[in-house]
Amino acid sequence: MLKTKHEKSDKKIVVIGGGTGVFTILTALKPHFRNLTAIVTMADDGGSTGVLREEFGILPPGDIRRALIALSSSDNVMLANLLSYRFEEGVGLTGHSFGNLMITALHRITNDFEKAIEEAGKILVTEGKVIPVTLGHSQLVAELENGQIIRGESNIDIPNHDGNLKIKRAWLKPEVEINPNARKAILGADLVVIGPGDLYTSLIPNLLVKGAREALQKTKAKVVYFVNLMTKHGETNRFAASDFVNTMRNYLGDGVLDFAIINNKKPSPAQLSSYIKERADFVNPDLNNIPPKKNFMPIATDLVRSKGLIRHDSEKVAKAVKMII
Amino acid sequence: MLKTKHEKSDKKIVVIGGGTGVFTILTALKPHFRNLTAIVTMADDGGSTGVLREEFGILPPGDIRRALIALSSSDNVMLANLLSYRFEEGVGLTGHSFGNLMITALHRITNDFEKAIEEAGKILVTEGKVIPVTLGHSQLVAELENGQIIRGESNIDIPNHDGNLKIKRAWLKPEVEINPNARKAILGADLVVIGPGDLYTSLIPNLLVKGAREALQKTKAKVVYFVNLMTKHGETNRFAASDFVNTMRNYLGDGVLDFAIINNKKPSPAQLSSYIKERADFVNPDLNNIPPKKNFMPIATDLVRSKGLIRHDSEKVAKAVKMII
Repeated sequence: MLKTKHEKSDKKIVVIGGGTGVFTILTALKPHFRNLTAIVTMADDGGSTGVLREEFGILPPGDIRRALIALSSSDNVMLANLLSYRFEEGVGLTGHSFGNLMITALHRITNDFEKAIEEAGKILVTEGKVIPVTLGHSQLVAELENGQIIRGESNIDIPNHDGNLKIKRAWLKPEVEINPNARKAILGADLVVIGPGDLYTSLIPNLLVKGAREALQKTKAKVVYFVNLMTKHGETNRFAASDFVNTMRNYLGDGVLDFAIINNKKPSPAQLSSYIKERADFVNPDLNNIPPKKNFMPIATDLVRSKGLIRHDSEKVAKAVKMII
Repeated sequence: MLKTKHEKSDKKIVVIGGGTGVFTILTALKPHFRNLTAIVTMADDGGSTGVLREEFGILPPGDIRRALIALSSSDNVMLANLLSYRFEEGVGLTGHSFGNLMITALHRITNDFEKAIEEAGKILVTEGKVIPVTLGHSQLVAELENGQIIRGESNIDIPNHDGNLKIKRAWLKPEVEINPNARKAILGADLVVIGPGDLYTSLIPNLLVKGAREALQKTKAKVVYFVNLMTKHGETNRFAASDFVNTMRNYLGDGVLDFAIINNKKPSPAQLSSYIKERADFVNPDLNNIPPKKNFMPIATDLVRSKGLIRHDSEKVAKAVKMII
């Protein structure tokens, strides 16, 4: 099969996150960088993933699946469709993602979560690695501004509480250690990209893992945070870009973040209209409210897709990353 | 990856059956023949397959799966394990074969059963084809010697009736037509291998499909029947080789069968002992009870594995087929 050869960069890029954000960034960077590693949260406990966690006692496969699909270079385009397929029928199958079932089955065959991911990667012919941020089992817990405690990622994410209340802090229970392979990847990286993604349910759970902050503080890699395009009800209501950045810097600790990349192009009214029912708003690019720090630079630029869902545009993301690295 | 090159024959071989028999024959012939086609029964309605038939309204995937795995030439050995994996946990997943779920998901994505098989074949890198004997949905029905009617393949197979009673006749309800691709394969074959396999629940359901007998009567291919090594309680109690052959010839019609290949080596007592609880007996190779016919030859030879489960030995099967073709 004839393939156009790209001149891909050898720079080592580590993407940290979860959910569709990781998928978006990996898809954007894949044509330009050959050494991609995704470190993904192990806090997810909703939907198909939640059922499999409970019934099989495995680590959550959903974010692994999304990252593997993004990194797939298989000529078989059906494979990505298959791995993304979600059953809509069947008493026991409805809601299950086929890819999640594959990772679960591979775990049962290999009896090793990382080996299962490796085998899934072979089937998908992935270029790059997907690493669970921890191999420990724990639950995400959040305290709201009124003192209420919310247990479980999916209860925070949905939200199963008054979504107008701010999240005061989040932690993992029990505490879990960073996966040594995740630590090694961070320490060996040239660039670490955090986000975009749900702040408290996809990004911060990675930083709450014991040893993650230390690795990010120790690495020589530049650390970049892609601020979300839209707020999320129950997590980041009325957040402006400065709120995202300040929260992220709180969890990362001083001196870690080198760049925050902020979208300054407001999506079209047609694009925004479909977000009204989700109570999601455009994130105001208020760079002036971000306190200046030594060796830290917030950057505002047009990052949004011009049509359809309000997502980071692949080419614009790749351009921004190439400029920084 | 270095691979030893075999000199494979170009002869077109069609294997007709279902269950583990098809797997055994395909596995035996794969190293020697490059043009293998499996035509498999669509009568199965038990276990994981039965649930998927009922809940998704699809044709039964189980026999397709086994044949695809047998024909896989993927370097990825984990794939065959994965496709054969059966979930043992989970309220909704227990008992489901991962491979069946894959075929079901591919069917939902492609909305076409044969296309789903083709895509599964691509993933498994199969050498050869797997063809459902019919694309029509129907149920296997059997009448016992006492006049009792048993509906559904799995009720006959288990058996859900007095297993000592003989099956008088079997039919499909409603009648279904042969898959044109199955017909084409039979007509274009150099050799058609029927069996081994459960006589009434894996082999005969293929012959009951409208047009199957006609295709087998019309083909210039030699037609060979591998008689089972052991009887099956509820289907072929106390059957000797002559009973198998006579029944098969009844369903095939006159002049179709060229060879019946019968094992004459009794397995060891150790091998036989594990079949006592299944009430399965060694099939007596009573060649003298098979009425002679023009252009038909029963052949008795050692076909059994020397150890473990009483199955056809791959090398002995391959040798027998090579002699005939």
